[in-house]
Amino acid sequence: MRVFSKAQIIARFNPELAVSQLEEGFIAYSEGKVQVPPVQGFAFKGANGDCCVKSAYIEGSPTFTVKLSTGFYDNPSKGLPSNDGLMLVLSAHTGQPLALLQDQGWLTAMRTALAGRIAARLLAPAQVKAIGILGTGMQAQMQLEQLRAVTDCRQVILWGRHERGLAAYTAFARELGFGVHSTQDAAEVAGAANLIVCTTPSRQALLHSDWVQPGTHITAVGADAPGKQELDPALVARADRIIVDAIAQCSQYGEVAHALGSGQINAHQLIELGTLLAGRAKGREHDGQITLADLTGVAVQDAQIASYALAALCT
Amino acid sequence: MRVFSKAQIIARFNPELAVSQLEEGFIAYSEGKVQVPPVQGFAFKGANGDCCVKSAYIEGSPTFTVKLSTGFYDNPSKGLPSNDGLMLVLSAHTGQPLALLQDQGWLTAMRTALAGRIAARLLAPAQVKAIGILGTGMQAQMQLEQLRAVTDCRQVILWGRHERGLAAYTAFARELGFGVHSTQDAAEVAGAANLIVCTTPSRQALLHSDWVQPGTHITAVGADAPGKQELDPALVARADRIIVDAIAQCSQYGEVAHALGSGQINAHQLIELGTLLAGRAKGREHDGQITLADLTGVAVQDAQIASYALAALCT
Repeated sequence: MRVFSKAQIIARFNPELAVSQLEEGFIAYSEGKVQVPPVQGFAFKGANGDCCVKSAYIEGSPTFTVKLSTGFYDNPSKGLPSNDGLMLVLSAHTGQPLALLQDQGWLTAMRTALAGRIAARLLAPAQVKAIGILGTGMQAQMQLEQLRAVTDCRQVILWGRHERGLAAYTAFARELGFGVHSTQDAAEVAGAANLIVCTTPSRQALLHSDWVQPGTHITAVGADAPGKQELDPALVARADRIIVDAIAQCSQYGEVAHALGSGQINAHQLIELGTLLAGRAKGREHDGQITLADLTGVAVQDAQIASYALAALCT
Repeated sequence: MRVFSKAQIIARFNPELAVSQLEEGFIAYSEGKVQVPPVQGFAFKGANGDCCVKSAYIEGSPTFTVKLSTGFYDNPSKGLPSNDGLMLVLSAHTGQPLALLQDQGWLTAMRTALAGRIAARLLAPAQVKAIGILGTGMQAQMQLEQLRAVTDCRQVILWGRHERGLAAYTAFARELGFGVHSTQDAAEVAGAANLIVCTTPSRQALLHSDWVQPGTHITAVGADAPGKQELDPALVARADRIIVDAIAQCSQYGEVAHALGSGQINAHQLIELGTLLAGRAKGREHDGQITLADLTGVAVQDAQIASYALAALCT
């Protein structure tokens, strides 16, 4: 088995190639051509930590993948990052372990950012006035990097809770060539931007329905576990198109779960990203519509990005 | 993260130390002091293969473990072993991956053999006349090696389907100091031995109830997945004590599942090995009783043997 470090993985990673492999994964998932066993979860209460194991095989693929990701939220006080993770790639022909990708969670962050890019390509309005970003962490950075490929807009309006995070992100975004306005008032983001990406671990709605302009597309990636929420359920209900990465998973703990739970939407309104990518559902039809992509993160993304990364490392 | 090979693991492995850690694991499991998420399973039909991911955390342990094991049954025609596997050990304090144990399935085989040893220590009759072994593979070898620690008996009666396997195992057992009689008639094993270990991947009963003598202890480790079976359900029903590693799992696919399914036993007859080890249930009471240990293999065994192996490697 070959072992690769995060630095090696990043050095050989080309998002333009990875994104099409991710699209194939979403399509296969929505066509049922995958094996995705139930997620394994651990909670380490004393250590304020958790771990999940996500595994997937896409029928016909030469490999399958098992991913571990951990979040230990007291780690920063020990000088360690909160998140860590790795992926194992095995042969679907012989079962042999082929590679250990010690990406420390980077591939998970990247596959999430690439899913946001796919959603924006399919659903953003033709004219993006400004890009709204909620959150100032690594995922907020990676989402913005990826959006450059799908819009010419270079204006960002940024929301965060802390001046320090806002300042650091502002410097990052300017470096990428963006004009940046930062705020601690999320209503201001909704008033200025018509392509909004929510990337926080919030446990209550940050973005309210009556703030959001017609024609806006919103991608929400924060609600990746029960209890998390970034959007007002009324905003979910107001959306003309609700795209999810996985109906089963989003119904459990995505933004969509809150709106389903309160009866504000029906399950039949949900459209999987793979169904949209395959052309078997309608996306945005005009620039007055509100569209939403609720992305909780699915194991087929891990399998596809690991497969791509390994191929890139071995060529 | 440190990476260890099978050879390194074997070189530092002391079964006498590992066995007590396994016993603690069984006890913790039966006391509910563990986190054992659902097993993840894959089937690779075209390649005649499967993979399962078993993970466990024992409350209070400094580590937790994720184990992958694969069986690809056409591999021998490619010059590869059918089974492979590895274990990942992570910190339960920080989530950091600590070690990759590239044991290629050896630790799984060893923890299974050690469970057989524990069962024999607790349940075998006082005078073992002969040890019966069904099967001639690696697990059959490891079970016999481990039984040396719990009985003075050095007579083996061996059953297998093929002359070649019988001859190889006979040579192995003689090397260990055993007298060996081999046969292709399982009734002969039951007639001569009163400590019998069944180690085959059979899908139909090999050992019939009316062959078995009073006072016999039987350990069955082959039925580790749905459809597998080594014992006549009537033999399970005839046992005075039915010990299982995990009631939930054995009820699904152990030997016990067949006898439960046909109504020949009741679930309340099942006693977990951890309950027996903790002294909270009775084992064998006299040498006329038939006892059975149905061992399907549980993730706490993996967690405990990985934890032990890592400690041994790091000291």
